[in-house]
Amino acid sequence: MKNILIIGAGKSSSALIKYLLDKSNEEHLFLTIGDISTENANKLINNHKNAEAIVLDVYDKNQREKLIKKADIVISMLPARFHIEVAKDCITFNKHMVTASYISEEMKALDAQAKEKGLVFMNEIGLDPGIDHMSAMQIIDKIKSNGAKMLLFESFCGGIVAPESDTNLWNYKFTWNPRNVVLAGQGGAAMFIQEGTYKYIPYSKLFRRTEFLKVNNAKFEAYANRDSLKYRSVYGLDNISTMYRGTIRKVGFSRAWNIFVQLGMTDDSYTIEESENMSYRDFVNLFLAYSPSDSVELKLRSYLKIDQDDLMWEKLLELDLFNPKKKIGIKNATPAKMLQKILEDSWTLEENDKDMIVMQHLFGYEINGEKHQIESSLVVIGENQTYTAMAKTVGLPVGIAALKILKGEIKTPGVQLPITKEVYEPILKELENHGIKFAEKEVPYLGYNPNHVMG
Amino acid sequence: MKNILIIGAGKSSSALIKYLLDKSNEEHLFLTIGDISTENANKLINNHKNAEAIVLDVYDKNQREKLIKKADIVISMLPARFHIEVAKDCITFNKHMVTASYISEEMKALDAQAKEKGLVFMNEIGLDPGIDHMSAMQIIDKIKSNGAKMLLFESFCGGIVAPESDTNLWNYKFTWNPRNVVLAGQGGAAMFIQEGTYKYIPYSKLFRRTEFLKVNNAKFEAYANRDSLKYRSVYGLDNISTMYRGTIRKVGFSRAWNIFVQLGMTDDSYTIEESENMSYRDFVNLFLAYSPSDSVELKLRSYLKIDQDDLMWEKLLELDLFNPKKKIGIKNATPAKMLQKILEDSWTLEENDKDMIVMQHLFGYEINGEKHQIESSLVVIGENQTYTAMAKTVGLPVGIAALKILKGEIKTPGVQLPITKEVYEPILKELENHGIKFAEKEVPYLGYNPNHVMG
Repeated sequence: MKNILIIGAGKSSSALIKYLLDKSNEEHLFLTIGDISTENANKLINNHKNAEAIVLDVYDKNQREKLIKKADIVISMLPARFHIEVAKDCITFNKHMVTASYISEEMKALDAQAKEKGLVFMNEIGLDPGIDHMSAMQIIDKIKSNGAKMLLFESFCGGIVAPESDTNLWNYKFTWNPRNVVLAGQGGAAMFIQEGTYKYIPYSKLFRRTEFLKVNNAKFEAYANRDSLKYRSVYGLDNISTMYRGTIRKVGFSRAWNIFVQLGMTDDSYTIEESENMSYRDFVNLFLAYSPSDSVELKLRSYLKIDQDDLMWEKLLELDLFNPKKKIGIKNATPAKMLQKILEDSWTLEENDKDMIVMQHLFGYEINGEKHQIESSLVVIGENQTYTAMAKTVGLPVGIAALKILKGEIKTPGVQLPITKEVYEPILKELENHGIKFAEKEVPYLGYNPNHVMG
Repeated sequence: MKNILIIGAGKSSSALIKYLLDKSNEEHLFLTIGDISTENANKLINNHKNAEAIVLDVYDKNQREKLIKKADIVISMLPARFHIEVAKDCITFNKHMVTASYISEEMKALDAQAKEKGLVFMNEIGLDPGIDHMSAMQIIDKIKSNGAKMLLFESFCGGIVAPESDTNLWNYKFTWNPRNVVLAGQGGAAMFIQEGTYKYIPYSKLFRRTEFLKVNNAKFEAYANRDSLKYRSVYGLDNISTMYRGTIRKVGFSRAWNIFVQLGMTDDSYTIEESENMSYRDFVNLFLAYSPSDSVELKLRSYLKIDQDDLMWEKLLELDLFNPKKKIGIKNATPAKMLQKILEDSWTLEENDKDMIVMQHLFGYEINGEKHQIESSLVVIGENQTYTAMAKTVGLPVGIAALKILKGEIKTPGVQLPITKEVYEPILKELENHGIKFAEKEVPYLGYNPNHVMG
């Protein structure tokens, strides 16, 4: 039996655990699933004989070391900040490790030791980061191997609600951590490069500078990610003239979301006095000029110039934003926390709702003096509230990678992300068996300046 | 002879040094003026026999201690972060100390020691903070002593260009640190209270939520300061229903400044690649969508919806913002630094330009069931580029306070700001001899809800 230690049995672990249990007889696997409580792990194990749930406090050094010593590979599904202690133990006890998180500086620092000991420390192998890296690198490598020159790379990804469960005016429900949605885009200007020109968008304009895209004939919009240039070198695209990464929403979401940004409701940097006793209406009024008689509604319409026939207004009404009776009920809350509370009333998934993952890459390149473009798209719909599209797309590549490392099929050691052929080829191939398959097609090269007009 | 040690001979020290030298024979004063170079100090001393300029590195502990030991009182005119080492020495060697800076946490921590040793550590005794505290507390104490209840306190202050030197469309020139002007309002939402309702304005809306005010029949505007509530307790106004503090500009400035904010040009959190070789036009284009053919001008007009007949546009042209030849010439500059460079081309004071300080307080109160309002205003025009209105209003209260502490007329010990009668009465009286005199008048009570309409 090979022992796999999985730390963290949250939302994103369901498909991972199912994948490994389904393989456990054939591959002789035994899973130990540790979390602060065994409740969710036991649900996911569902009495399968090849797994055991245990209570684990990741900061309990003794218990952690004992478990890691016993394992053949360790998968950490906890939030990124918890990985490093586990990673250090994996170095000490000569264990491979897999995470779906961005490589931190501390993790990076273990690279030489991991290499020396022949250990694979695979990170960023969930959805985004993860499937985005693998699917992009597969096509980039193919384009380059034909002797072509990369001109453009644009990549979009979003977790939204599936069409069959899309029942509100925002065309949005929380399919992942609501807090991250409320804070999205904060902390600095978005930056990218288009036709060799750097572009910067401040947070206050981010949701008005969206780009449109079409996936399977459905129209979406995307707002720019914080730093589109981060993977330029990693992907070997140092001299590319257009590189843009964005987050996908249904059309019209961002323009309405911008109302919250303009009002200041997404601010998480200060707390509001007596937030617990405030009504939703009081909350809105905090961000509007004082008036002894004018209504909150009219003040907001006038301030942000929302026309009477603008659908944005109906979106606000749908959230019950002007209700004078509903209370926030959270002490010392920041505006962002108060907004999150209001949104959770309306945007929480119902029992039978399904989520959806949409990803699209555009690759522009030049070969023999001609410009070409490849469009590669992925749509995944969740099965139910446990086996969501998000859990599948995050958990399956983690599970596949872990098994392939265990079997020695992925063996290049070191702290890494999945951008080499050794990693992405077999994993993308196996993902197809689970319905995670990109549709790739040639389209006319568009770029931003196909005729070389000088601006 | 009484020895006064002045540390820092920058812009704000001119009027301070002149005041003390003018008094030096009569009061038997000798000034030692230390700075990193003696050039400016020697200019200001102008061979007066009762002063000496010396080179002083405030981090040279030996030299600093020697000088402080010799002094009877120490005035630190350096930026606030340099005060603390000097303050600790003043405790050690039993010296009084005066600064025009906000009281830092470290400075506050010396309060008990200063009191124990009978030392006066007077801070926040320049213009703003300084004259604002004193002039406000004088009227607040008077109103309260009549048994009235304070309803409203609003306070506005600004350093701008004098009408006779007001020669550009922005009605603005840099009369103080340009960097502070570019970064003004950043770092968090502005907060204040109106008629018992807390109000919050995010940075991206700050310059569109200005209030108008009239001083000597001239109309001004003001944008809200970061935290108007900071001095609520200090001024004894804990239960006041309206408290607002704002920064004064000429009407129309803020609306045009908002263009820079919306574009993201005031951001100081990241650097621009190849900033040194960028033209002013390139700089603007960083914040606009890519286009192979549309002009930077039209993109900007369209993005921010600037009409053809809007004077804001002329303001941008006056700054030469679209010049493709003028270079920024600063390496690794942030957007804020690049904008500052462009503004300095146009907004630097000319040889004979004069500056102006405008301050206005509004006090609303209720007595015997009737509401009243007092308006108190100050306008100071600078003499020239050395004896500016800013240098006079910052330096004179510092000098007057230092002399009165030295003579034992201000003697309550401890780390403090000038809010007690012992301090503000004699200083405001002497400031009048130097033309710094508030005009006080009764006006009808306005408030925001005089008729108690329910919102």
